[in-house]
Amino acid sequence: MKRFIQVAKLKPEMTGEYRRLHAAVWDDVVKTIKECNIKNYTISLDGNTAISYFEYVGDDYEKDMAKMEADPVTREWWKHTKPCFSGHDQSVYYADCDEIFHLD
Amino acid sequence: MKRFIQVAKLKPEMTGEYRRLHAAVWDDVVKTIKECNIKNYTISLDGNTAISYFEYVGDDYEKDMAKMEADPVTREWWKHTKPCFSGHDQSVYYADCDEIFHLD
Repeated sequence: MKRFIQVAKLKPEMTGEYRRLHAAVWDDVVKTIKECNIKNYTISLDGNTAISYFEYVGDDYEKDMAKMEADPVTREWWKHTKPCFSGHDQSVYYADCDEIFHLD
Repeated sequence: MKRFIQVAKLKPEMTGEYRRLHAAVWDDVVKTIKECNIKNYTISLDGNTAISYFEYVGDDYEKDMAKMEADPVTREWWKHTKPCFSGHDQSVYYADCDEIFHLD
């Protein structure tokens, strides 16, 4: 199992929209996330910064992320969520942080 | 079980020290954290921002946090870690973020 903490900057005016979207995530998006071997996935907001924590329990993270990217429903979902992000590089939304401590 | 994602700002010049301290956390500090009903505890760095994720599995969070604060070894440990934080309010180091999504 590999843990991830990631951060992404949201546009201030889109933070409410990002929150609303995540209060009612589509069932098929959740299904795909699980099928891509992600569990215990939490997103929190610190002002305009979105912070995610999740655990990857598969054995090929790149392959599973490619599978997620290829999923039509997930791509449709991202059409709603991606305009919320402020990053100028449209290929990167959440960036990995650097783990310095873990206690089971 | 209650999940927490918290953030804290570090002094830029103390980020390396914070990292070094957490590469060798004292055994008795870890023991106290566990005795205070915290599990699956991760700290990551995003530049000078420290982000923590943990799960509280007890039934009285305030009481367990007071227990942690009263522990002599933890208090000694904090003498090392607290100078790393940039907050001007010395009573608050990590602040809770606002959970907007969770998938088990």
